[in-house]
Amino acid sequence: MREIKNILKTKAEEVETNLEKLMNLKEETAPRLTEAMKYTLLSGGKRIRPVLSLMTAELLDGNYEAALKAGSALEMIHSYSLIHDDLPAMDDDQLRRGKKTNHLVFGEAEAILAGDALLTYAFEVLSELELDPAAKIKIIANTAKYSGQQGMVGGQILDLEGENKKLSLAEMQKVHKAKTGALIKAAVLNGVYCSDYSEKEEQALLAYAENIGVLFQIVDDLLDLTGETEKMGKVVGRDEELNKSTYPKLLGLNAARAAAQEHADQAKTELNIFGDKAEDLKALVDYILKRQH
Amino acid sequence: MREIKNILKTKAEEVETNLEKLMNLKEETAPRLTEAMKYTLLSGGKRIRPVLSLMTAELLDGNYEAALKAGSALEMIHSYSLIHDDLPAMDDDQLRRGKKTNHLVFGEAEAILAGDALLTYAFEVLSELELDPAAKIKIIANTAKYSGQQGMVGGQILDLEGENKKLSLAEMQKVHKAKTGALIKAAVLNGVYCSDYSEKEEQALLAYAENIGVLFQIVDDLLDLTGETEKMGKVVGRDEELNKSTYPKLLGLNAARAAAQEHADQAKTELNIFGDKAEDLKALVDYILKRQH
Repeated sequence: MREIKNILKTKAEEVETNLEKLMNLKEETAPRLTEAMKYTLLSGGKRIRPVLSLMTAELLDGNYEAALKAGSALEMIHSYSLIHDDLPAMDDDQLRRGKKTNHLVFGEAEAILAGDALLTYAFEVLSELELDPAAKIKIIANTAKYSGQQGMVGGQILDLEGENKKLSLAEMQKVHKAKTGALIKAAVLNGVYCSDYSEKEEQALLAYAENIGVLFQIVDDLLDLTGETEKMGKVVGRDEELNKSTYPKLLGLNAARAAAQEHADQAKTELNIFGDKAEDLKALVDYILKRQH
Repeated sequence: MREIKNILKTKAEEVETNLEKLMNLKEETAPRLTEAMKYTLLSGGKRIRPVLSLMTAELLDGNYEAALKAGSALEMIHSYSLIHDDLPAMDDDQLRRGKKTNHLVFGEAEAILAGDALLTYAFEVLSELELDPAAKIKIIANTAKYSGQQGMVGGQILDLEGENKKLSLAEMQKVHKAKTGALIKAAVLNGVYCSDYSEKEEQALLAYAENIGVLFQIVDDLLDLTGETEKMGKVVGRDEELNKSTYPKLLGLNAARAAAQEHADQAKTELNIFGDKAEDLKALVDYILKRQH
């Protein structure tokens, strides 16, 4: 377990450095806007999406530098979604990664625009990848598809509509698949598209991504129920407060834990075609699973 | 004058049809989100950005269908910026193109997300253009650059910061250049990149775009001062209310009109290298200029 923890830490640091570099690359038009963008983007975190792009590209002996940038673009998209999600009109959150949320520091208008700018910059970064144009187009199409109305943004609307409503398990899964699962898939696929790959490999990694997407969600739900605000860097118990449907609420604590285990096992099975080379991606699964305890 | 009016009308209708088609192309995740996206995107208007892409591609004998899509993507970006701009945290507007603003109909959270989804979908549409991948990348890079922190979004922050402040002419021009000028440039350049072009042609068309960008702004400022709410489909006098710096306020009415004339002349001069082929783009300049009366 120590080893995967170190791998993740090292890669998260690489991502951090790259994000800083990308944020200092362009001449800025409005310093206050850049500051607001950096405030949330560069506030640490596990950087799991870019790390997944990196680990996937590594598995396939792909272009690591390109995967670093392609993953960083997804982190920008994840970041903008957090900024918008935290707004008073949305979840009205005060605390994010142990810091005041963006709009509390910069103002609501600035937070909305910082989110817009991060989303736009993500595509600028992707257009500048050092890959052949056809691969870049694949990555841009993939990123847009999974982060837009058919993916993350669609999921956010479903999530809002689901508050104060008792969803069925299938309905809740549809929300999660779009809201959080889609970007995990995009991350793994962006790593694939920075590499040479067979269709079979692409499908196996997509299935892996789907399973760890669900796994993440179940573990997050469990942590929101049983975690501590201080340790988490965000206010726990928000699901209950917003009356959201969660895995433990719909399935009970034990069945939720069993479902987590099941998706973890399935994720690892999907990687069998890669043999020993997939060791790190398998260890990551166990690492996520362990967070719940 | 009748002729250019008809050309613009026909092209705006083509754009309208294409936007509708694009909005019905993908399976929807959340019907309410799609509805909110369509509400603002399909609410008519002059569609001047896509029309510029079309007229530019026509001038250069480029790929008209691709320019229609590339321009439509810019219209999505323009549309999302209107939705976010109208939010209570921003300009707090009630009326847009004669209809209630998006957040008044769908709610604030939904309006924020509809904007995010339109912006994201713009890049998905661009990734699907029927052009060779290198040209698509050029268009995507161009679009992102001019609509992000160095372009439109940067300009919006500068615009907010400029409220209740007396800006110098240079400061106000910096705001406009980013907030409204950038997307006009992107529109013309997207038309260029759907075509075969020389560097000289690209530069001439960029200079044309810069001049009509300023022209648009001056005419808009004049109309906000002298127009009628009913005829405009939006509340006039908002600049005054928000205490914004405008051309007539900084230069006086007559000098503002003279500046409009000057930029109109310059825009037309830039097109001289194209000879008679640039007739329509020149007529467009006169058409914009005439709106102020």
